[in-house]
Formats: sequence, structure tokens, C-alpha cells
Amino acid sequence: MKSIVYDFSNMMAEQLGQEQGIRREEIDAVAERARSAVRNVQRKRGSGWLRWFGLPYQQENVGAIKQLAVEMASRYHNCIVLGIGGSALGSIALRSALLHPWHNTLPDEKRPGPRLFVLDNVDPDWLAGFFDIIDLEDSCFNVISKSGSTAETMSQFLLFRDALQERLGDSYVQRMVITTDAGKGSLRPLVQQEGYSSFVVPDGVGGRFSVLSSVGLFPAAVAGIDIDALLAGAAQADAETQAEDIWQNRALLYAVSQWLSYRRGKPISVMMPYSQALRDVADWYRQLWAESLGKRLNRTGQEIFAGPTPVKALGVTDQHSQVQLYIEGPYDKVITFLRVERFAHELSMPRWTTGQSGVDYLGEHSFNELFQAEGDATALVLTEARRANGSFILPELNAHTLGQLLFTLEVATAYSGELYDIDAFDQPGVEAGKIATYALLGRSGYEKRRQEIEKARANATRFAI
Amino acid sequence: MKSIVYDFSNMMAEQLGQEQGIRREEIDAVAERARSAVRNVQRKRGSGWLRWFGLPYQQENVGAIKQLAVEMASRYHNCIVLGIGGSALGSIALRSALLHPWHNTLPDEKRPGPRLFVLDNVDPDWLAGFFDIIDLEDSCFNVISKSGSTAETMSQFLLFRDALQERLGDSYVQRMVITTDAGKGSLRPLVQQEGYSSFVVPDGVGGRFSVLSSVGLFPAAVAGIDIDALLAGAAQADAETQAEDIWQNRALLYAVSQWLSYRRGKPISVMMPYSQALRDVADWYRQLWAESLGKRLNRTGQEIFAGPTPVKALGVTDQHSQVQLYIEGPYDKVITFLRVERFAHELSMPRWTTGQSGVDYLGEHSFNELFQAEGDATALVLTEARRANGSFILPELNAHTLGQLLFTLEVATAYSGELYDIDAFDQPGVEAGKIATYALLGRSGYEKRRQEIEKARANATRFAI
Repeated sequence: MKSIVYDFSNMMAEQLGQEQGIRREEIDAVAERARSAVRNVQRKRGSGWLRWFGLPYQQENVGAIKQLAVEMASRYHNCIVLGIGGSALGSIALRSALLHPWHNTLPDEKRPGPRLFVLDNVDPDWLAGFFDIIDLEDSCFNVISKSGSTAETMSQFLLFRDALQERLGDSYVQRMVITTDAGKGSLRPLVQQEGYSSFVVPDGVGGRFSVLSSVGLFPAAVAGIDIDALLAGAAQADAETQAEDIWQNRALLYAVSQWLSYRRGKPISVMMPYSQALRDVADWYRQLWAESLGKRLNRTGQEIFAGPTPVKALGVTDQHSQVQLYIEGPYDKVITFLRVERFAHELSMPRWTTGQSGVDYLGEHSFNELFQAEGDATALVLTEARRANGSFILPELNAHTLGQLLFTLEVATAYSGELYDIDAFDQPGVEAGKIATYALLGRSGYEKRRQEIEKARANATRFAI
Repeated sequence: MKSIVYDFSNMMAEQLGQEQGIRREEIDAVAERARSAVRNVQRKRGSGWLRWFGLPYQQENVGAIKQLAVEMASRYHNCIVLGIGGSALGSIALRSALLHPWHNTLPDEKRPGPRLFVLDNVDPDWLAGFFDIIDLEDSCFNVISKSGSTAETMSQFLLFRDALQERLGDSYVQRMVITTDAGKGSLRPLVQQEGYSSFVVPDGVGGRFSVLSSVGLFPAAVAGIDIDALLAGAAQADAETQAEDIWQNRALLYAVSQWLSYRRGKPISVMMPYSQALRDVADWYRQLWAESLGKRLNRTGQEIFAGPTPVKALGVTDQHSQVQLYIEGPYDKVITFLRVERFAHELSMPRWTTGQSGVDYLGEHSFNELFQAEGDATALVLTEARRANGSFILPELNAHTLGQLLFTLEVATAYSGELYDIDAFDQPGVEAGKIATYALLGRSGYEKRRQEIEKARANATRFAI
């Protein structure tokens, strides 16, 4: 299958000039460091927190996933994922990218698989309102939490379990699928006790690297996505991103060009798909990039407070919102476009001769031409304004090319961890917030923290108008 | 009606320390500059590009909007907005904030008004797919473009006009409402020629300040939003943001605290609603802030390449995606929470004694408590990590408080323009992209630009893997 391409022409000094562009020699100068990044990562692949490298090759698990998915899809019109962060963003990205662009709004008779809802928040109005649109009897649920103690997911589990049991009695168990740790945590014992179907979140696969595990695959398969093709694409990307020569490895070159940009004062990394379907891949990337690279300490324990800030934008929509800033504002950004060469539909613009020059020229074109011309024009004017920009180019958008893209970005993240010299697989900063939440909710064992918080609040100086 | 509050306690040195926090004296030191910002803006209010200050008081226009809105809502189950940028983001924000949280998914019998779709992109697959979910005969359309030459909107207009005329003949005209300039541009002559109903985009109201004009109000009214309350809220905010004393004016203090943060090396301005309903207000703000403040030149024509980068985040969802970076990464951000004190629903968590300590404590709480505790905890740990953060607090979310919030942010933008010494009301950087698009599409009059582009392309050095 044809490979995706990373085009970094407009990152380079040849196009941007010496001040803003990267020189070939700069890349050559870090080639050795890049080479050892590949060596370190590839040596550890399949072990520790790099076990997600094995996901493209999990034949057996995929069979079980597809079997239960077909069963659920034949029985229910709704599949509802209870999960947040890494347990949600992958499913959302797959849904937007690979299903009908208005999948959940299609009438039942036109929709090939169940509606797919991913409830990744605990806003009370939003959750309460959900009961107005959903027929519980016509729905299956996938609860996803490795630890089984994610407060948001577990509270939703309590909510829907109760509602289902009240409506359906104990038979509700058949429609609830639990994706959690194989042995540890709060959910696995409930699987055994209640008899839910379940999948395993494998060890060594962090939430943000879990899209190709049961976490992302089961909801995708229920909705009708070709998960074999997704994994085959990932496997192809894996094979193509192992070269130690920086000029031959697109994941590595992406990582290096982003890192060099960061080091020369561009802390903002915009991902801007020119594809409505790829919009949520940008949100998935935001988590991958931010949680992996945003770190206080380097690997020798020194404080470095590092990390690029990923930003989501959408072409052409954000041309009318963000591009003014990208072209005229500070030189603090690098923009990565996601481009699709061939769309599934060719949509023409009807002609209508109105005598208005601002309208009449349009009828000679298709939406495909307009959309691509706008993407090309944006890259062009950014380049003319000496703004660093690159593009991942997908020959077309399907499960295979998306698998390539997602896996390439995961590998690029692992390589980036080496370049920044940080641990790309932990998230120590998130822990403090969880503990503070427990304390504020009065969970037992957190009394001391609560006292601290109350004292700090009493001593705070309030400024408000 | 109770006012919204801007709480900036956690922006201040009292909480963050001297290095990261703002000292009272710093604010006092710019009080004179802030005072003249207010004077300059308030003196020009209602004239030039500040005519949006008059929008809260447009009694007459509102009557016409409501009348046609009621008529359309009684006749059709779908209202489809064709518009982009400032002609879309306001409607989207109002829809998410003030309608049922799953409005478009509610079955017809439960939905108080028509479904509201805003088509702010020209992706061919997304648009082609739209025809699979919509019954054209049961739909009205609102085409919004001040100039009538916005390529995206006009091409959509051609598409839907053609489809409607083919299906319904000339009677399609009754279901198309045009919002455009009163006299100029490509659309007004078509209104007269074809007999469409129409509204006016008033002069001196830029797209990003148009949410309270016909642009935002008509679609909102069709969907059932109380636009009188929205304007009353805006009027209240207007009255409350005119004080020249910085300590008495929340729009001014927001502008100043953001500007001081920018000047001390925090170029990233995150807006993070703890409210699923307010998520799209953050996108509306992204345009307002980026296009208004992202400028190459100051008002004396010097190159300054200024402008904070607005970023959208969502509580609690992005705690599991972005907060790691916000807490541990560079000190380059200021975070503005949007908080709602009282939600419409009180949603409790059912108890289930499982023997798992990570689950059983939850049943003592409601989703409201959890959601608020998580918002409080995030602000707390950010503050402990000396990360600047403030909050706009809405006593509850309704049309009145939302009107206050939107208008306050608009006024803050105008004041910010004075502080940055830039023109907050133009967008010269967007023009280059439009011209390049015309050239690539072969529009007549742009041949020379096309030649330039072709030459540049031929000379470019391509780097791609």
C-alpha cells in the first residue's frame, strides 16, 4: 500500500531563509543524536513502556474483538464508550476519520453500524441530557479504565449501571463490556463478580499510546471500522520508521524538525488538517504530544520545564480565525498540515451566471479544487511570510493510511523523548490534581491534604471584580 | 440580574510569588495607560469599527429577526447556516451554550426548535455526506457573508441553491434568508433580483464582533434562543465595563492582566471552560483574540509581530490531555477558566458498595460535586505550580449571563488593542491567502500572481520522505 509522506520543504532554509529555516547542516549536525534516539527506542521496543510497538501484530486479540463487535453491532443501535483521555481520544479520532462524516446523525436505515458516542466528560447537564437522546435498551456500553479508579469513568459506570439495572434487571450485564487491566485495579474483580465481557489494556501501553489496543479497536470495530487495515497500516509505518539514517526515516525527521524548531524559539506546534475527517486526529495528537513531552525534569533529574504546546486548527475553517495570527504574529509556531490527496467524493459547484464577478468564477470549479487550492495557498503565504510549516500527505484517507499516520506520530513521540532527554511515558503532573480532587471530595485517606488546601484557601488574597 | 465575575486572584504575586505573579504596583503602574485605553475606545464607541457597541440596543431589528425566526421555525425542522469564521463561530457558540446539550440529536418530538447546522467548511466529503442526513424540503437556509464574495460561503450557496431549485422549483426562494451588506457586495443584488428575505450585516461590525448582530441572532432565534435576554446581558456588561479605574472594570482588568502576562513571556492564552456547554465559546474567543491582536505592525507602522496565541481546552476532559504540560512545561501560558456556579441539573451518583476503595467513595457525591471539585483542584495545583490562572465565573449559564460574557470579552479585546498599540479591527494577513487561492483557481485578474506562484514552485527545493 502507498505510504504517507512527510513533506518538510517549508521547514527548510531553502524556502524560509537562514533566520527562520532549518539548514541541512543543522540536521546533519544532530544526525548522531538522532541515530542514538532510534537505537535506544528500537532496542527497547516491546518492553517496558514501549510495548505498544507490538500492537500492530496482535492477531489473536483482534479475532476476539471482531467477534464480540459483530455481536454487539447486530444487537444494538448505540455503542456508548465511558472513558476519558487516552481511553476516549483514539475512538473519537477513528470515528471522525473513518466513518461517514455525519455517522451519528444518519437515520438508522442508512447507517451501516451503531451510533458511537464517547462520553469523555462529567458535566452534569451534558450527562443528564444524554438520557433524552438515548434508548438504553437499544445500547451497549464499553467502560474503559486501566486502573478502574478513574473518577470520571467510574462515576459514569455507576450512573449507567444503575439506570440499566433498574430498566433491565440483571440481564443488563450482557451489554456492558469492560476494558481494563488483566489482573490489577478496581474493575477486574467486578468483571469476575458480575460476569461482564472484557478486554485487556495491556501492560506497557500508556493511555495515549492505546488507540491500537482493545481500547481503540473494540469501539471502532463495533461501529464498522476495518481494524485489520488499521493495524496493517501501523505495521507498514513501523517498518518504515526504523532507519537510523535521519534522511530516510520520516518519524525521526518529523521529531527532529519539531525539536529544532522548539530550540530556536518556536514553542507552539500547530496541527492543521485540511480534512474535516481528520480534525479529531489533531486532538488525539494534542494529548500524545503534550503529556509525553511536557516535563519538569529531564532523565537525570534536572529541572528543565520543557515541552512544546500542541494546538489544533482546521483548514479551511481556521483560515478565517487563526491564520491572521500565524502569518503576522510572533515567529513562535511551527505548523503541520495533514493533507489528503484524493477525497472519496468529487463534488462540483453548479454554475450560475449572476453577473457578480465574486461569484461567477466559482462555477468553473469543484469543491475539491477549492479545498485543495485553499490548503496550497495557506502553505504558500505562510512560507512567503517565513513561517515554518510541513505536511503529512495521505494519498487517500482510509483505515490503512490512518494507521500509518497514527503509528508514525507515536514513533515520532518516542524519538522526541530521546531528543528532549525526558521520559515520554510518565505524567507525574497529573497526579497532583487527582489527589486534590480526592481531598476536596473528602475521600478517606486524603484528610491531611484537605486540611492543607483549606488553610491555603483561608490565607489566599482574593482579587475579583 | 447578577453579574459575571472575573476572579484574578491566581494571576497575582500574592498567590504565585514575585517571579510569576503580577504585583499590585505593576497594575497601578499601567493604570494611566489603561485609563486612556478606556477613554480612546469609549470616545469612539458607535463609530468606525466600534459600531458593535450599539448592538445591545438594536430594538427594531430584533423584532424583525424574531418574526421571521418564528415563521421559519414553524415551517422547517432544520436550519442550515452557510457561513464561515465570524459568520459561523457565534452561532455555534450560542447553540452549544444555550440549547439542549444534545439538541441536534434529540428526536423531533422532544426538540423545542429546528436542528441548527452550521457548515463552516468546504471539505468535499463532509458536504457531500450532508445530503445523506438532511431532508432539503424540511430545511431553511441562512447564507451569511457581508461582502458576498467569501469563496467558501458562496460556493455552498451555489450548491444548495441548485439542489433546492431542482427539487422545489422557484419556490425554494422562500426558505433562503440572506444576511449581507445593506447595499454593497455580490449578494445584495441577488436578494433584490430573486426576492430572498434578508438581514443586514451592519457597517462597522467586523465578523468577529458580529455575534450580537443579525449574523448570530437570526439562527439563534430560529433554534429557540432568547435573544432579548442575550442582548440585555450584553447591555449590562457594557454598562459595567466603562469605568476608567482599572480596579473597577473587569474587561479592562482582564485585558491588562493578559497583556502583562504576555509581556513577561507568556505568549499562550488558554481558555478552559469547565462546562461542556461553553466549549465553543472558547473557539469563538480564539478568533476574537487571534485576529484582533495578531498583528505585524503597530499603529505607527513599525513591525512588532505581536499577538498572544489563544488555545482552547476543556475541563475536565483536557485534564487527561493538556494539564500535564500546563503544570510541568514552560512558564509560557496564562489559563482562563470559565466556571458556572450552578448547573441546571443536579445529577447524583448511585451508590454501589463493591469493596473497591477506588469506586465506593464516589457514591457519596453528585456529578456536580465531582465536576466542581475537579475544576477547583486544577486551579489549585496550577497555582501551587506557580502557573498564572484566572476565572470568569457565571452564576448560572443562560442567555443573559452568556451575553455578559461575550460582550465583556469583546470590550476586553478593544482595550487590548490600545494596550498592544495595534489596530484590533483589521486582518491584513488574511488577504494574501485569498489572493493566492484566486490565483490558483485561475480567477481572471489574478494571472500575474499565478505566474509568480508557478515560478516560485518551480524554483522550490523539495524535501520529503
